[in-house]
Amino acid sequence: MEINELKEIDKTVKGWLHESRDNVLRKIDTRLKVDTKTSRRDLVTNIDKQNEKFLVGKIREFDPDAKILGEEGFGDQVHSTDGRIWIIDPIDGTMNFVKQRNHFAIMIALYEDGKGVLGYVMDVIGKHLLSGGPDLGVFDNGHPLPPVKDTSLREGLIGLSGPMVLHNDYNMVDIAQQSLGMRIYGSAGIDIISVLRGELVGYISYLKPWDFGAGRILCETAGLKMTTIDGRRLDVLSSTPVLLATRNAHQDILTIVSK
Amino acid sequence: MEINELKEIDKTVKGWLHESRDNVLRKIDTRLKVDTKTSRRDLVTNIDKQNEKFLVGKIREFDPDAKILGEEGFGDQVHSTDGRIWIIDPIDGTMNFVKQRNHFAIMIALYEDGKGVLGYVMDVIGKHLLSGGPDLGVFDNGHPLPPVKDTSLREGLIGLSGPMVLHNDYNMVDIAQQSLGMRIYGSAGIDIISVLRGELVGYISYLKPWDFGAGRILCETAGLKMTTIDGRRLDVLSSTPVLLATRNAHQDILTIVSK
Repeated sequence: MEINELKEIDKTVKGWLHESRDNVLRKIDTRLKVDTKTSRRDLVTNIDKQNEKFLVGKIREFDPDAKILGEEGFGDQVHSTDGRIWIIDPIDGTMNFVKQRNHFAIMIALYEDGKGVLGYVMDVIGKHLLSGGPDLGVFDNGHPLPPVKDTSLREGLIGLSGPMVLHNDYNMVDIAQQSLGMRIYGSAGIDIISVLRGELVGYISYLKPWDFGAGRILCETAGLKMTTIDGRRLDVLSSTPVLLATRNAHQDILTIVSK
Repeated sequence: MEINELKEIDKTVKGWLHESRDNVLRKIDTRLKVDTKTSRRDLVTNIDKQNEKFLVGKIREFDPDAKILGEEGFGDQVHSTDGRIWIIDPIDGTMNFVKQRNHFAIMIALYEDGKGVLGYVMDVIGKHLLSGGPDLGVFDNGHPLPPVKDTSLREGLIGLSGPMVLHNDYNMVDIAQQSLGMRIYGSAGIDIISVLRGELVGYISYLKPWDFGAGRILCETAGLKMTTIDGRRLDVLSSTPVLLATRNAHQDILTIVSK
């Protein structure tokens, strides 16, 4: 895609995100309709659904030939990475959204033939929009993101998934103990923003395409590594434990995982 | 103390806090001088020290007869709860401050003969000041704090100390598993604000007087329970594992701790 076309898409997506945020904020103090999906900890609300419908509608109008992969299923069945795919998470961190009305994100990604083109991760309450891609660079609220320092695990705080720590999956306890401390925020989007802003040296969680699709584009552009937990290439349509980290911390963590 | 006198003190302390926040923010992008205290995870910076000296100076001028208990030792040796005691934590969550420049708090408490009079917990970057006491009530950025719902552990998110989870102290893993999820924020002040705002149903960590002194006054005023981890009365001069929670969650957690 040409740079001017990319900038035009970028402007359009940011418009959707701002409208989407305003929609969510307008309803944030109303009584939510909360349903459970696979367990009592896997929630969906009327706002997740409304917001996905809103974004799907905008994308269909703007890019009718593309496929859409959305968490709540209002998009398409997507079985191949051919062509253009939009990936959306209308509310990432729904548990935080329901219980805290805070610490949740809206995420949008555009892939073309499996390659990341543009990614957007918005911390709605914290008011951070991380945006960009390989051809535009990464921006934090419109300002170029400062280079992310290549900190080691030993010198950084690590974002982890609560359940993975409690089950000590992949030696998660050792990983936490080697770091300066673990943090658990409960939203992939919030953790990914924290890694991009240098507040965490990495993040590990079991993720689905809508959890990591946008973040992956931004993180790889910023020189971070995002792979499966055992260091393999991450397929954008897969659901798997994901390891995002600085290059140094990524190596440190792989050593502990493979012990 | 009379209500007018309390309001006058309240106004004065808020003035110190705003000045103190401005001092911290002015230096937040400078290179910090970081020293370790008891371990590589127990840090103090030049800004912790400067801010404690600033607050101690303000208190000495305003209330010369009172004793001051400060984390960094610029106050007094305090061995009894008699009389007026000011307790200050100039930067709570120093690790977050150093590694994130985010998620840290400034805290001030006033006790008289062991009884909490006024407490202040300020999330510097998140811009929340929780303030008040038994005679004034609790305020969030100057607005009366909405009543905190008496949510059970099973229906809430719980804030925990990372090290206590990793060592499974006091059945912390069971506590996390019974809740809807654990969160680890790495600052007592940030966790206490989250409990007061209803974002967490409770918080458990090993704490020192400057970590819980201010929060205790606000939490008890708001109808929350703060005790030792085994449910005993919390002495304001003690360093101990602390359990803060709604009444329901407090009971739920004590049952798990004593298993």
